[in-house]
Amino acid sequence: MKTNQRKLIAVIGGSQCSPKEARLAEEVGRELARQGAILVCGGLSGVMEAACKGASSEGGITIGILPGESRRAANQYVQIPIVTGIGWARNLAVVKSAQAVIAVDGNYGTLSEIAHALQSGIPVIGLNTWSLVRNDQQDNSIIPAQSPKEAVDKALNSATK
Amino acid sequence: MKTNQRKLIAVIGGSQCSPKEARLAEEVGRELARQGAILVCGGLSGVMEAACKGASSEGGITIGILPGESRRAANQYVQIPIVTGIGWARNLAVVKSAQAVIAVDGNYGTLSEIAHALQSGIPVIGLNTWSLVRNDQQDNSIIPAQSPKEAVDKALNSATK
Amino acid sequence: MKTNQRKLIAVIGGSQCSPKEARLAEEVGRELARQGAILVCGGLSGVMEAACKGASSEGGITIGILPGESRRAANQYVQIPIVTGIGWARNLAVVKSAQAVIAVDGNYGTLSEIAHALQSGIPVIGLNTWSLVRNDQQDNSIIPAQSPKEAVDKALNSATK
Amino acid sequence: MKTNQRKLIAVIGGSQCSPKEARLAEEVGRELARQGAILVCGGLSGVMEAACKGASSEGGITIGILPGESRRAANQYVQIPIVTGIGWARNLAVVKSAQAVIAVDGNYGTLSEIAHALQSGIPVIGLNTWSLVRNDQQDNSIIPAQSPKEAVDKALNSATK
Repeated sequence: MKTNQRKLIAVIGGSQCSPKEARLAEEVGRELARQGAILVCGGLSGVMEAACKGASSEGGITIGILPGESRRAANQYVQIPIVTGIGWARNLAVVKSAQAVIAVDGNYGTLSEIAHALQSGIPVIGLNTWSLVRNDQQDNSIIPAQSPKEAVDKALNSATK
Repeated sequence: MKTNQRKLIAVIGGSQCSPKEARLAEEVGRELARQGAILVCGGLSGVMEAACKGASSEGGITIGILPGESRRAANQYVQIPIVTGIGWARNLAVVKSAQAVIAVDGNYGTLSEIAHALQSGIPVIGLNTWSLVRNDQQDNSIIPAQSPKEAVDKALNSATK
Repeated sequence: MKTNQRKLIAVIGGSQCSPKEARLAEEVGRELARQGAILVCGGLSGVMEAACKGASSEGGITIGILPGESRRAANQYVQIPIVTGIGWARNLAVVKSAQAVIAVDGNYGTLSEIAHALQSGIPVIGLNTWSLVRNDQQDNSIIPAQSPKEAVDKALNSATK
Repeated sequence: MKTNQRKLIAVIGGSQCSPKEARLAEEVGRELARQGAILVCGGLSGVMEAACKGASSEGGITIGILPGESRRAANQYVQIPIVTGIGWARNLAVVKSAQAVIAVDGNYGTLSEIAHALQSGIPVIGLNTWSLVRNDQQDNSIIPAQSPKEAVDKALNSATK
């Protein structure tokens, strides 16, 4: 498959995560690579590293959009490091570059990415992540998934053009 | 009071809002000015404009941190327009410039600002706004307020140095 | 003069500077305040601090648009710190927020600000600063000044609306 | 060659350019691909498009770091579009992601990229581009090249780790 025909899918989540979350993220990465998608993430540790590891193990392409000033901050499974120098504002670039976003757990940084994605009309698939309640009403914009395979399938099916 | 001894408090919320929300935001702005705080916001319409209007009516200083390329996008009550040219990444500058944040209602843009503030350790006071549930557990980081006066009091009391 | 009728003028230059440059920058700050302009700068040391010191000594308003995550990085003469968290990308916000820019000496960071200002159609006044040669042809876009007073006069006269 | 062992080299220049400049940029792109480098650029038209066209014609990988909100703004030869949404602040990401920068002609936007690269210690190779004079002294930081081949050789030889 030509590079420019592959879908870009973001995997977002905490830079620290439990072994269970790491397994989920790694399997998400593997499945994305198997289905020919390019993985984009924030390039650091935790969920990001696990997802890159999984994608790499299946021969996939991994892009890490880094907050700081140096490509050396990227985890070892990032093949293409993008160095932004704009700090947490790089969260926007992670989700805006993607045609769909898969959130695995995550803290406030991940929540900001979910919010930026939804604001931009980019589908968000959730695996054990945030739920949203606005002014006492449930907001169902995050598409739930029960497994990495289901998350990847839903991401690829809902991906924007 | 000297300018550099005044607290900077952000008011965040939608660029479109109901008359009820506008009244809340305007009263928040008025109360901030009465208590000597400088109002910082995203500089556009809706909740931002109502808050600036309220603060201006009490002689307060208003700062609008704008997403686009032109100072003319600021609402008429912004006294000091900051033109960032960085789009929605300016949301981070709005909350990081503040010592506390008051959220009035709001959509996904506001949610991203709440998330960035909490990530940065900046207190968030909520008036009819988002609630957060992380992995099925309630997150109580947003400090609730029942009135504009209560929101401003809590913001000033919790403000970072 | 009302705050919102005052012109915003940026002073840019190195975070390290010689005593001679500091004197020039301080006098630029003083003259801006005397003429009722608001000073905007990058908020750090060197030329920025000297300009803020001068403006403050004449009762002017000073705004520092900071690259990092903390308001404490601002020099002591910054009255209104704007915390962007976007690193050197804040250079764009410094010049785009201004209606004219005065460059005092400066290194590559200052050169980037001059370039962003010229790209945005914002007048740049130069005091002992960069000259530009494009493809072997002199580029005369930087308006030269021989003294702080002349720089401020030219900045206020050329300021965009 | 593995993706993560390839060097990332930026090509910068105007979004409008003459046929002669387009030929230079296209040949730079071709030579980068022949030598196994990944091309990173601003993703738009002019010099950027010509360089991507050249790299693609030799089977190279092309990355376009876009200023706006949509991947559709990328030129047709961009294989991996990065959508930043941060406007001209993306200029920093273009140069910071690169291990060396080749400037082909260019206007003020290109000048800002040259300045940001030099500020970050990233080598800049110039083909018919800006010259710098600081406070009446020539600044020789831009490494001149007389041909696309020479520019690519110098970029790869001077590339940071």
